[in-house]
Amino acid sequence: MKGYIQVYTGNGKGKTTASIGLMIRALGNDLRVYMGQFMKGQRYGELNTLEKLGVTIERFGTENCVISPEHVTDLDLAKAKAGYKKVEEILLSKKYDLVVLDEICVSTYFNLITKDEVLYLMKIKPKETELVLTGRYAPKEVIEAADLVTEMKEIKHYYNCGVMARDGIER
Amino acid sequence: MKGYIQVYTGNGKGKTTASIGLMIRALGNDLRVYMGQFMKGQRYGELNTLEKLGVTIERFGTENCVISPEHVTDLDLAKAKAGYKKVEEILLSKKYDLVVLDEICVSTYFNLITKDEVLYLMKIKPKETELVLTGRYAPKEVIEAADLVTEMKEIKHYYNCGVMARDGIER
Repeated sequence: MKGYIQVYTGNGKGKTTASIGLMIRALGNDLRVYMGQFMKGQRYGELNTLEKLGVTIERFGTENCVISPEHVTDLDLAKAKAGYKKVEEILLSKKYDLVVLDEICVSTYFNLITKDEVLYLMKIKPKETELVLTGRYAPKEVIEAADLVTEMKEIKHYYNCGVMARDGIER
Repeated sequence: MKGYIQVYTGNGKGKTTASIGLMIRALGNDLRVYMGQFMKGQRYGELNTLEKLGVTIERFGTENCVISPEHVTDLDLAKAKAGYKKVEEILLSKKYDLVVLDEICVSTYFNLITKDEVLYLMKIKPKETELVLTGRYAPKEVIEAADLVTEMKEIKHYYNCGVMARDGIER
């Protein structure tokens, strides 16, 4: 089965959750699933469930929320770079049918990962692997190289991101 | 904790999967989760995983894919109406923290559920319940009455819906 490259970008809610839904669907068909999360170190509720299901999840962020490119620390950068090497290995290993790289698109906006690095990962993707990239600000070249792109467009939101996040709903 | 009403609509991929991701997040925080799927009778891969996790899922569609309002059968209509009564009971029971009504928005487009019926469900939602409505063609009034609305906008798609669907990725 040929694998494609899917991108979920845009400023609306639903990018990470859509990729989790894809993982749940894939697991239901006994596919092998990997998730690497860039810029995330906080513990979200979904991790409990996904770990229970035996999904391999690795996280390449700190506890802090990066709010602008100027706020990036050396630790943020080191974690992102280590994550990049790790997912390169994961893709080359051909061990997984579905590889989700959560928030990798927005990582380019924060200069944690370069656009060319993302394009390189898209290029080395094994033919049969489905690759899912999420995050705001997907670079134009990444969108061009992808097979399926959905923009999550915020039409209405009851609060600003990060503020008032509720356990079980936003995290 | 106050619950809100979220809508995932638009022509792009990711609406149902985003709602599944929300369920996985909620389950990780021990919330009680219910999913009612309108217009779906086919067996998708996610059901295997969600059932394994003990999620209550009910399905109010047939095996056939409804392709236009003119193609709706009496059985499609009867199943949708029974589903509507069922989810009304579910909401009134206050037994669930998160209630997902998958494809209920597009059900209004196919005249299976009326817009007023959806607005009524939004109105009787218990204060603490998070209600998630998915599907294309969310009526204007439903969007107005919701707290959070994301439009999944198709930027690029490698094939048309329903055609070439792959086990574990699209179903």
